[in-house]
Amino acid sequence: MKNNEIYSEKIYEKGNVMASACPSRAILQHITSKWGVLILVILRQGTKRFSELRKEIDGMSERMLSQTLQYLEQDKMIHRQDFQTVPPHVEYSLTPFGQTAADKLYELVDWLETTLPEIEKGQNR
Amino acid sequence: MKNNEIYSEKIYEKGNVMASACPSRAILQHITSKWGVLILVILRQGTKRFSELRKEIDGMSERMLSQTLQYLEQDKMIHRQDFQTVPPHVEYSLTPFGQTAADKLYELVDWLETTLPEIEKGQNR
Repeated sequence: MKNNEIYSEKIYEKGNVMASACPSRAILQHITSKWGVLILVILRQGTKRFSELRKEIDGMSERMLSQTLQYLEQDKMIHRQDFQTVPPHVEYSLTPFGQTAADKLYELVDWLETTLPEIEKGQNR
Repeated sequence: MKNNEIYSEKIYEKGNVMASACPSRAILQHITSKWGVLILVILRQGTKRFSELRKEIDGMSERMLSQTLQYLEQDKMIHRQDFQTVPPHVEYSLTPFGQTAADKLYELVDWLETTLPEIEKGQNR
Protein backbone atom coordinates (compact mmCIF):
# COMPACT_ATOMS: atom_id res chain seq x y z
CA MET A 1 0.00 0.00 0.00
CA LYS A 2 1.53 3.21 -1.22
CA ASN A 3 0.41 5.33 1.71
CA ASN A 4 1.92 2.94 4.20
CA GLU A 5 5.28 3.06 2.45
CA ILE A 6 5.30 6.85 2.64
CA TYR A 7 4.64 6.72 6.37
CA SER A 8 7.15 4.03 7.22
CA GLU A 9 9.82 6.04 5.39
CA LYS A 10 8.71 9.28 7.09
CA ILE A 11 8.58 11.19 3.79
CA TYR A 12 5.26 12.93 4.28
CA GLU A 13 4.13 16.48 4.86
CA LYS A 14 0.72 15.66 6.31
CA GLY A 15 -0.66 12.66 8.18
CA ASN A 16 -3.39 10.32 6.95
CA VAL A 17 -5.36 8.46 9.60
CA MET A 18 -6.76 6.09 6.97
CA ALA A 19 -3.27 4.57 6.49
CA SER A 20 -2.46 2.10 9.26
CA ALA A 21 1.27 2.92 9.26
CA CYS A 22 0.74 6.68 9.67
CA PRO A 23 1.70 7.80 13.19
CA SER A 24 -1.40 10.04 13.26
CA ARG A 25 -3.56 6.94 13.61
CA ALA A 26 -1.88 5.89 16.87
CA ILE A 27 -2.17 9.42 18.28
CA LEU A 28 -5.82 9.58 17.22
CA GLN A 29 -6.43 6.32 19.06
CA HIS A 30 -4.84 7.66 22.23
CA ILE A 31 -6.72 10.96 22.27
CA THR A 32 -10.06 9.35 21.38
CA SER A 33 -9.62 6.30 23.65
CA LYS A 34 -12.27 5.58 26.27
CA TRP A 35 -10.31 7.39 29.02
CA GLY A 36 -8.19 9.66 26.81
CA VAL A 37 -11.18 11.79 25.76
CA LEU A 38 -12.38 12.18 29.33
CA ILE A 39 -8.92 13.05 30.71
CA LEU A 40 -8.32 15.68 28.02
CA VAL A 41 -11.76 17.21 28.54
CA ILE A 42 -11.32 17.38 32.35
CA LEU A 43 -7.86 18.97 31.98
CA ARG A 44 -9.48 21.89 30.13
CA GLN A 45 -10.48 23.02 33.65
CA GLY A 46 -6.79 23.43 34.53
CA THR A 47 -3.91 21.53 36.13
CA LYS A 48 -4.97 18.44 38.10
CA ARG A 49 -3.29 15.94 40.39
CA PHE A 50 -3.53 12.21 39.70
CA SER A 51 -6.03 11.72 42.55
CA GLU A 52 -8.22 14.59 41.29
CA LEU A 53 -8.41 13.06 37.82
CA ARG A 54 -9.42 9.72 39.30
CA LYS A 55 -12.13 11.34 41.41
CA GLU A 56 -13.65 13.37 38.58
CA ILE A 57 -13.85 10.56 36.03
CA ASP A 58 -16.22 7.96 37.37
CA GLY A 59 -15.28 4.29 36.89
CA MET A 60 -11.63 4.66 35.80
CA SER A 61 -9.08 2.41 37.49
CA GLU A 62 -5.68 3.70 38.65
CA ARG A 63 -4.00 1.46 36.11
CA MET A 64 -5.99 2.82 33.17
CA LEU A 65 -5.41 6.39 34.31
CA SER A 66 -1.61 5.85 34.57
CA GLN A 67 -1.43 4.14 31.21
CA THR A 68 -3.53 6.74 29.41
CA LEU A 69 -1.57 9.61 30.97
CA GLN A 70 1.65 7.99 29.75
CA TYR A 71 0.40 7.73 26.17
CA LEU A 72 -0.86 11.31 26.20
CA GLU A 73 2.46 12.52 27.58
CA GLN A 74 4.41 10.63 24.87
CA ASP A 75 2.16 12.21 22.24
CA LYS A 76 2.96 15.67 23.67
CA MET A 77 -0.68 16.27 24.59
CA ILE A 78 -0.13 16.62 28.33
CA HIS A 79 2.66 17.85 30.52
CA ARG A 80 3.59 15.92 33.68
CA GLN A 81 5.23 17.73 36.54
CA ASP A 82 6.67 15.65 39.35
CA PHE A 83 7.52 17.72 42.44
CA GLN A 84 9.80 14.91 43.68
CA THR A 85 8.24 14.89 47.13
CA VAL A 86 7.30 12.14 49.59
CA PRO A 87 4.42 11.41 49.40
CA PRO A 88 4.48 12.02 45.62
CA HIS A 89 2.93 15.18 44.26
CA VAL A 90 2.47 14.95 40.48
CA GLU A 91 0.48 17.40 38.39
CA TYR A 92 -0.87 17.09 34.85
CA SER A 93 -1.78 19.88 32.46
CA LEU A 94 -2.53 20.31 28.76
CA THR A 95 0.26 21.27 26.35
CA PRO A 96 -0.70 23.62 23.47
CA PHE A 97 -1.30 20.51 21.27
CA GLY A 98 -3.41 18.98 24.03
CA GLN A 99 -5.38 22.19 24.46
CA THR A 100 -6.41 22.16 20.80
CA ALA A 101 -7.27 18.46 20.85
CA ALA A 102 -9.23 18.88 24.11
CA ASP A 103 -11.17 21.87 22.75
CA LYS A 104 -12.20 19.88 19.67
CA LEU A 105 -13.15 16.85 21.76
CA TYR A 106 -15.10 19.07 24.14
CA GLU A 107 -17.21 20.33 21.26
CA LEU A 108 -18.12 16.73 20.45
CA VAL A 109 -18.81 15.86 24.10
CA ASP A 110 -20.85 19.00 24.73
CA TRP A 111 -22.96 18.37 21.64
CA LEU A 112 -23.47 14.73 22.65
CA GLU A 113 -24.49 15.59 26.22
CA THR A 114 -26.93 18.22 25.00
CA THR A 115 -28.38 16.05 22.23
CA LEU A 116 -28.61 12.87 24.31
CA PRO A 117 -32.33 13.16 25.19
CA GLU A 118 -33.12 13.58 21.49
CA ILE A 119 -30.92 10.62 20.48
CA GLU A 120 -32.51 8.45 23.17
CA LYS A 121 -35.97 9.36 21.90
CA GLY A 122 -34.87 8.28 18.44
CA GLN A 123 -33.57 5.01 19.85
CA ASN A 124 -36.89 4.17 21.49
CA ARG A 125 -39.00 4.72 18.41
CA MET B 1 -22.84 8.41 43.23
CA LYS B 2 -25.62 10.94 42.72
CA ASN B 3 -25.03 11.38 39.00
CA ASN B 4 -25.27 7.66 38.34
CA GLU B 5 -28.63 7.45 40.15
CA ILE B 6 -30.01 10.22 37.98
CA TYR B 7 -28.94 8.39 34.84
CA SER B 8 -30.16 4.95 35.83
CA GLU B 9 -33.58 6.46 36.58
CA LYS B 10 -33.57 8.43 33.32
CA ILE B 11 -34.53 11.71 35.02
CA TYR B 12 -32.04 13.98 33.30
CA GLU B 13 -32.23 16.78 30.80
CA LYS B 14 -28.62 16.64 29.64
CA GLY B 15 -26.03 13.85 29.54
CA ASN B 16 -22.79 13.75 31.52
CA VAL B 17 -20.00 11.63 30.06
CA MET B 18 -18.10 11.74 33.37
CA ALA B 19 -20.82 9.56 34.98
CA SER B 20 -20.34 5.91 34.09
CA ALA B 21 -24.10 5.17 34.06
CA CYS B 22 -24.95 7.99 31.65
CA PRO B 23 -25.85 6.60 28.20
CA SER B 24 -23.81 9.41 26.61
CA ARG B 25 -20.64 7.67 27.74
CA ALA B 26 -21.43 4.50 25.76
CA ILE B 27 -22.31 6.53 22.65
CA LEU B 28 -19.11 8.57 23.04
CA GLN B 29 -17.15 5.33 23.18
CA HIS B 30 -18.75 4.06 19.99
CA ILE B 31 -18.23 7.24 17.98
CA THR B 32 -14.65 7.71 19.21
CA SER B 33 -13.68 4.03 19.00
CA LYS B 34 -10.67 3.04 16.88
CA TRP B 35 -12.84 2.23 13.86
CA GLY B 36 -15.89 4.35 14.73
CA VAL B 37 -14.03 7.63 14.12
CA LEU B 38 -12.66 6.46 10.78
CA ILE B 39 -16.02 5.11 9.55
CA LEU B 40 -17.85 8.33 10.46
CA VAL B 41 -15.19 10.47 8.80
CA ILE B 42 -15.23 8.40 5.60
CA LEU B 43 -19.04 8.52 5.43
CA ARG B 44 -18.84 12.34 5.23
CA GLN B 45 -17.94 11.67 1.56
CA GLY B 46 -21.40 10.13 1.03
CA THR B 47 -23.18 6.78 1.04
CA LYS B 48 -20.86 3.77 0.92
CA ARG B 49 -21.23 0.02 0.53
CA PHE B 50 -19.70 -2.35 3.08
CA SER B 51 -16.90 -3.32 0.69
CA GLU B 52 -16.07 0.33 -0.05
CA LEU B 53 -15.70 1.10 3.64
CA ARG B 54 -13.38 -1.85 4.07
CA LYS B 55 -11.24 -0.75 1.16
CA GLU B 56 -10.89 2.85 2.26
CA ILE B 57 -9.96 2.17 5.88
CA ASP B 58 -6.65 0.37 5.90
CA GLY B 59 -6.21 -2.50 8.37
CA MET B 60 -9.84 -3.00 9.48
CA SER B 61 -11.19 -6.56 9.57
CA GLU B 62 -14.66 -7.44 8.28
CA ARG B 63 -15.67 -8.43 11.78
CA MET B 64 -14.67 -5.08 13.31
CA LEU B 65 -16.40 -3.21 10.50
CA SER B 66 -19.67 -5.13 11.00
CA GLN B 67 -19.58 -4.70 14.74
CA THR B 68 -18.81 -0.99 14.64
CA LEU B 69 -21.50 -0.37 12.00
CA GLN B 70 -24.01 -2.14 14.26
CA TYR B 71 -23.14 0.05 17.25
CA LEU B 72 -23.31 3.21 15.17
CA GLU B 73 -26.68 2.17 13.74
CA GLN B 74 -28.08 1.48 17.22
CA ASP B 75 -26.88 4.92 18.34
CA LYS B 76 -28.75 6.50 15.38
CA MET B 77 -25.49 7.79 13.87
CA ILE B 78 -25.72 5.84 10.62
CA HIS B 79 -28.52 4.56 8.44
CA ARG B 80 -28.29 1.07 6.95
CA GLN B 81 -30.17 0.31 3.77
CA ASP B 82 -30.41 -3.31 2.70
CA PHE B 83 -31.61 -3.72 -0.89
CA GLN B 84 -32.53 -7.36 -0.16
CA THR B 85 -30.74 -8.64 -3.23
CA VAL B 86 -28.59 -11.70 -3.94
CA PRO B 87 -25.66 -11.10 -3.72
CA PRO B 88 -26.36 -8.65 -0.86
CA HIS B 89 -26.23 -4.92 -1.58
CA VAL B 90 -26.16 -2.91 1.64
CA GLU B 91 -25.46 0.81 1.86
CA TYR B 92 -24.49 2.97 4.83
CA SER B 93 -24.95 6.71 5.24
CA LEU B 94 -24.83 9.30 8.02
CA THR B 95 -28.01 10.30 9.83
CA PRO B 96 -28.32 13.97 10.87
CA PHE B 97 -26.86 13.02 14.31
CA GLY B 98 -24.03 11.15 12.59
CA GLN B 99 -23.35 14.09 10.29
CA THR B 100 -22.82 16.42 13.25
CA ALA B 101 -20.64 13.88 15.09
CA ALA B 102 -18.63 13.19 11.91
CA ASP B 103 -18.09 16.90 11.24
CA LYS B 104 -16.75 17.43 14.76
CA LEU B 105 -14.52 14.36 14.52
CA TYR B 106 -13.27 15.48 11.12
CA GLU B 107 -12.12 18.77 12.64
CA LEU B 108 -10.04 16.80 15.13
CA VAL B 109 -8.67 14.43 12.46
CA ASP B 110 -7.87 17.24 10.02
CA TRP B 111 -6.04 19.21 12.72
CA LEU B 112 -4.11 16.08 13.76
CA GLU B 113 -3.09 15.19 10.19
CA THR B 114 -1.96 18.75 9.54
CA THR B 115 -0.14 19.12 12.86
CA LEU B 116 1.50 15.68 12.79
CA PRO B 117 4.92 16.79 11.49
CA GLU B 118 5.08 19.39 14.27
CA ILE B 119 4.03 16.88 16.94
CA GLU B 120 6.60 14.38 15.68
CA LYS B 121 9.30 17.02 15.85
CA GLY B 122 8.32 17.67 19.47
CA GLN B 123 8.50 13.94 20.17
CA ASN B 124 12.02 13.62 18.83
CA ARG B 125 13.49 16.50 20.80
